[in-house]
Amino acid sequence: MGRQKIYLDKLARFFQIRHLLLRQALAECLGTLILVMFGCGAVAQSVLRGSHGRFLTINFAFGFGATLGILVCGQVSGGHLNPAVTFSLCLLGRERWRKFPMYFLFQTIGAFFGAAIIFGMYYDAFWDFPGCFNVTGDSSTAGVFATYPGKHLTLVNGFFDQIIGTAALIVCILAIVDPYNNPIPQGLEAFTVGFVVLVIGLSMGFNSGYAVNPARDIGPRLFTAIAGWGTDVFTARNGWFLVPLCVPFLGALIGTIIYQLMVGFHVEGEARDQKKNTEESLQLTINANGKEANC
Amino acid sequence: MGRQKIYLDKLARFFQIRHLLLRQALAECLGTLILVMFGCGAVAQSVLRGSHGRFLTINFAFGFGATLGILVCGQVSGGHLNPAVTFSLCLLGRERWRKFPMYFLFQTIGAFFGAAIIFGMYYDAFWDFPGCFNVTGDSSTAGVFATYPGKHLTLVNGFFDQIIGTAALIVCILAIVDPYNNPIPQGLEAFTVGFVVLVIGLSMGFNSGYAVNPARDIGPRLFTAIAGWGTDVFTARNGWFLVPLCVPFLGALIGTIIYQLMVGFHVEGEARDQKKNTEESLQLTINANGKEANC
Amino acid sequence: MGRQKIYLDKLARFFQIRHLLLRQALAECLGTLILVMFGCGAVAQSVLRGSHGRFLTINFAFGFGATLGILVCGQVSGGHLNPAVTFSLCLLGRERWRKFPMYFLFQTIGAFFGAAIIFGMYYDAFWDFPGCFNVTGDSSTAGVFATYPGKHLTLVNGFFDQIIGTAALIVCILAIVDPYNNPIPQGLEAFTVGFVVLVIGLSMGFNSGYAVNPARDIGPRLFTAIAGWGTDVFTARNGWFLVPLCVPFLGALIGTIIYQLMVGFHVEGEARDQKKNTEESLQLTINANGKEANC
Amino acid sequence: MGRQKIYLDKLARFFQIRHLLLRQALAECLGTLILVMFGCGAVAQSVLRGSHGRFLTINFAFGFGATLGILVCGQVSGGHLNPAVTFSLCLLGRERWRKFPMYFLFQTIGAFFGAAIIFGMYYDAFWDFPGCFNVTGDSSTAGVFATYPGKHLTLVNGFFDQIIGTAALIVCILAIVDPYNNPIPQGLEAFTVGFVVLVIGLSMGFNSGYAVNPARDIGPRLFTAIAGWGTDVFTARNGWFLVPLCVPFLGALIGTIIYQLMVGFHVEGEARDQKKNTEESLQLTINANGKEANC
Repeated sequence: MGRQKIYLDKLARFFQIRHLLLRQALAECLGTLILVMFGCGAVAQSVLRGSHGRFLTINFAFGFGATLGILVCGQVSGGHLNPAVTFSLCLLGRERWRKFPMYFLFQTIGAFFGAAIIFGMYYDAFWDFPGCFNVTGDSSTAGVFATYPGKHLTLVNGFFDQIIGTAALIVCILAIVDPYNNPIPQGLEAFTVGFVVLVIGLSMGFNSGYAVNPARDIGPRLFTAIAGWGTDVFTARNGWFLVPLCVPFLGALIGTIIYQLMVGFHVEGEARDQKKNTEESLQLTINANGKEANC
Repeated sequence: MGRQKIYLDKLARFFQIRHLLLRQALAECLGTLILVMFGCGAVAQSVLRGSHGRFLTINFAFGFGATLGILVCGQVSGGHLNPAVTFSLCLLGRERWRKFPMYFLFQTIGAFFGAAIIFGMYYDAFWDFPGCFNVTGDSSTAGVFATYPGKHLTLVNGFFDQIIGTAALIVCILAIVDPYNNPIPQGLEAFTVGFVVLVIGLSMGFNSGYAVNPARDIGPRLFTAIAGWGTDVFTARNGWFLVPLCVPFLGALIGTIIYQLMVGFHVEGEARDQKKNTEESLQLTINANGKEANC
Repeated sequence: MGRQKIYLDKLARFFQIRHLLLRQALAECLGTLILVMFGCGAVAQSVLRGSHGRFLTINFAFGFGATLGILVCGQVSGGHLNPAVTFSLCLLGRERWRKFPMYFLFQTIGAFFGAAIIFGMYYDAFWDFPGCFNVTGDSSTAGVFATYPGKHLTLVNGFFDQIIGTAALIVCILAIVDPYNNPIPQGLEAFTVGFVVLVIGLSMGFNSGYAVNPARDIGPRLFTAIAGWGTDVFTARNGWFLVPLCVPFLGALIGTIIYQLMVGFHVEGEARDQKKNTEESLQLTINANGKEANC
Repeated sequence: MGRQKIYLDKLARFFQIRHLLLRQALAECLGTLILVMFGCGAVAQSVLRGSHGRFLTINFAFGFGATLGILVCGQVSGGHLNPAVTFSLCLLGRERWRKFPMYFLFQTIGAFFGAAIIFGMYYDAFWDFPGCFNVTGDSSTAGVFATYPGKHLTLVNGFFDQIIGTAALIVCILAIVDPYNNPIPQGLEAFTVGFVVLVIGLSMGFNSGYAVNPARDIGPRLFTAIAGWGTDVFTARNGWFLVPLCVPFLGALIGTIIYQLMVGFHVEGEARDQKKNTEESLQLTINANGKEANC
């Protein structure tokens, strides 16, 4: 056992990355990989064999997949798993802006590999499925990895769909992580975010599969383009792919504004007022003591 | 980053509302909006496309939607989300009566806008649906927003249905927030209330969709009247809308009485007795010390 | 507000019950009422309209109904809700034996009224249902309240079914409440017991509806006998009702023995050994000090 | 009561096992028994009567069955319930290698008896089922206890299926129990692991029923060989049983490497660096004090 400990210690020292941002980006990559692997795996089961998945199982998998992804990387990188979340926290000055491109890139890489793992896992099942590499149509399988809008959905409504979904996500996440509004015990943030994702899926997944996360959508979409579905994944529905790639940032902005105007600024202000009162009374005491000492 | 911080600080000071009751009412409005948005969204998915929602998903969405609504506003306003809850807490003297109309109003406004958001989100899907703006009948869609009784239900049974449902809700909520009966760790109240709503839905949703919340019912009903379903939403089933609007308050009264008689008064009394004993023994000690000092 | 406080205080003093066992029995009654109300309500929805309930919703309702029942009464009475649990805790000397008949009686009364509430709530729906007051047959409704064995089940297998189910319940509950084995944070016992009930339902509900609780079965059965189903509820399947009434106590005994032999005695013994060691070393120190002082 | 206490105390002393590893192995045996009993029970309900179980109920039962198994034995043995988990913790030097064969053996014994209990519980139902003791084919029942691959699955893909599933399990479990990465409050590990098992089932159960646990698969398989299904359980699909028996260890190795490279080594290194800094500054202070003292 002694020798094993020494060997493990050497390994740990050799592979330790000292660059903080790179370490965080790697953790974020693994977290997003876990989210997409579990989420898309559940969609794959549902598409490839109906009895092994339904709407509810997909939402559970995305929700608790988010929980597990955050648990794995949260202590290192904060567990955003979503560029829209990183964007919102940068807007509020809680993360530095230079983190944003780095996180976006590694989240996308993680989502890409998460999709690749599920493709490898269900390789036989995909070949066994009638609509093997179809992007559109009733037996299409591209929807396992990226999101495509329902037939009833116009581009305008899809635009609002992504704004509403992402804004709802951001309002809830900001409430959970707001340092002036401590609604839950420490350590349960990951579970609560999982429930947020679950509920958003249960009530907003019908139009276009609730991407509300640019990395979760573009990473697997890139993978499908390479893996055999071809460039149709980008051209389908008049370039739909741009909606889940860009609109969530607008939704994040709106969600941040709504939360701050209706709750955030007030709890922050109250904390500031209290602090000021404490300082003033402290100052008064010091002055009083000073005068007494002078006497 | 420095400039961003200063700018954000200015914004925070500018938009901070110092009037406590208004701030609480705004938070309550956002919380109820979240509850209704997630809940009605799940019903919309279930009605508009059966494969994307079932009885269980609706109950999950209302339950965890309540959890998220409470998490967002709980630290500011207490997270009632329901005038019947506010009414019960006022009855017990834990909230001031003047809060009641203000909360009721803003909860209704929040529910109204929650319904509006879901209508906007599924605008294309509503137009695509056969029974687009029907209030009654097999393919009616008004039930997405407000509650309507099942065909088998008489008005008398509907009356008891709302009383039983609200009383069950209030008994559980009073147990959770009773200051003399601490059954759960602090910070988990929101989750527990979510489970209460979930279970009430699972076992009492069949008759008339478990409104048990006047604001959750009348807000979206008003919205549907405006949005195109017309005044049928009020006249349907001989003015059914009055039942979920008024009866929950009676149910809240009954639930409060049951909880207090069977648990509440006793745990409160025990705490009072213990306090009295402590004070008495303290008094005795002081007297004894006083006598000793006199000697 | 001042006058309301005084009035409420007077009420509290007037209705406070000072007899501890009666207070506990009342709380136990309310808790079991909640369990049976939510559980049987979900079965009623599932039987009376298939779309509003399935196997999973019933198990959720019984599981989280148990959680809510325990939360409501746990601080006062311990939240057993089940005579088999009371029996097991008496066996281990953690509750006094004289509690057992009192708890059993009031748990049964609570279950009786829980069934009555559900009957009142779905009164119209029962009359609207084809097999209105049938005890046996395909469209029977007696199974909403009490448990009846499946067609494939012999009495011998039903006997073992109840033993295994109750033993599994007791092993898990003893692990959760064992004072020498603290597996979960304080305050989460109710949730964990809810998961136990949920899982037992998911994996053992097929044979005869997992009564595993004499009070939960006999209380509602008595109610159905009075409410219109008649004495068939006792005579059906050669007096099946005796199995869920008596066998769970045998299962509780076996579960207690298994848990104690495989885990309980060892964690208790370890705690005792540690205490002994601490005391011995303390004794040695005292002796040593004594000797030093003597020198 | 006094006599009962003395008697219980005597019993406790008589049955207390003082050999630590044996005690741990016994606890591990009971925990795995609980996992397999609840998990396979849910599969049995789903196979023997479709209305009493679906894909989701099976995953809930395995997930929360794992939670309950860990709760029962976790304080004594760590609650591995899975030789692949024990293997991974041995690899990282957190458990001694000599524990591995002992745990593997007793986990397998526990899984064997868990399957036996379910067989006894559903004995009548098995005989009542058309495909009573079939190992393969549409109405086969061997899949209730052990895992068999889907028709579409080749051995190569099954190999990767088990590697991916086990690696995902191990990455999440290592994150949960990593002493340098504290993502969740103490006492909630069991619940979190339950969610891991649930999510793995929801997204990876389609190919071959996510064994990802050699003991959970080989124990019940041995039982079926004895109970009447015969040696077909080993010869089916060209000796498939070797895949879930051996491959999870390879998956555990890969999962351990991925977690350590992407998160584990870095959080450990950071903790080491901080400790070193603290020690150095302490050393400096001591030196400085020493010099001062010398002056």
